[in-house]
Amino acid sequence: MKLPSSTEWVLHCSATLAQLAPSETASAAQLAAYFDLPGPYLAKQLQSLVRAGILTATTGPRGGFRLGRPPGEITLLQVVEAVDGASSPYECREIRQQGAGALPASDCRDTCILAARMADAHDAWRRSLATESLADILASLPATAPARTRSKLSAIRTGP
Amino acid sequence: MKLPSSTEWVLHCSATLAQLAPSETASAAQLAAYFDLPGPYLAKQLQSLVRAGILTATTGPRGGFRLGRPPGEITLLQVVEAVDGASSPYECREIRQQGAGALPASDCRDTCILAARMADAHDAWRRSLATESLADILASLPATAPARTRSKLSAIRTGP
Repeated sequence: MKLPSSTEWVLHCSATLAQLAPSETASAAQLAAYFDLPGPYLAKQLQSLVRAGILTATTGPRGGFRLGRPPGEITLLQVVEAVDGASSPYECREIRQQGAGALPASDCRDTCILAARMADAHDAWRRSLATESLADILASLPATAPARTRSKLSAIRTGP
Repeated sequence: MKLPSSTEWVLHCSATLAQLAPSETASAAQLAAYFDLPGPYLAKQLQSLVRAGILTATTGPRGGFRLGRPPGEITLLQVVEAVDGASSPYECREIRQQGAGALPASDCRDTCILAARMADAHDAWRRSLATESLADILASLPATAPARTRSKLSAIRTGP
């Protein structure tokens, strides 16, 4: 059970964009240089966040990415599921209904109890990440972090 | 984020073995026929459960698998982690320490706050599955289930 490695990228990029001033944006190339990540692949992941409404992309010479809504309204769950989807890691293929021990369909109207318990665990995972917002993450950083982040980001000169 | 499809197999096989009488066993071939699963690959997964102490394998003409301890002492978490391991689905590669925005090592003595929140979610998932035992699963089945399971299993004739 593995999340894609881009999960770390989008979490950090979202937390970075949450530290910008309201008028500021950062391009995919800037964020890639900031974390030393492959630019084109990172850009693709950031577009997934745009599609999920987590980021807004603006075009033009000063264009780039910014948060699509306030950091208190963006949960870690939303960021993670924007790149990995919301489906449960457990796939029930209803093996209880196949083979020599197959249960009749009439006994299988309810969800298999094992699938139900696996779904409960996935719900617990989702709830945990849904209670943590980017604002919570920002609140845990040193008070000097946003100024440092903005300074380091704006010092990055990327090609047109 | 996906668990291997064998997760469903080992959960159902464990719950099936939990329904046997204390003196009974079932072979990998029987369990494979019971659920119409590929025998050799299922046998490999069952051996993982043996290594984890969840099952005991006995050899000889009447040999096979049985639970390695009482069903109340076997949690769904133990079964799932026997085939998929216990590592978190989130991998932190410390991108906070790389690129133009790299934090100095002195600022990174603590676990990254994002990795810590992802670990909290994994802990919530693990706790959920650790509270459910095979005995709990058995208690939720119809009272007629164990007799049916034993009858269907013993009717399976497999090669030597």
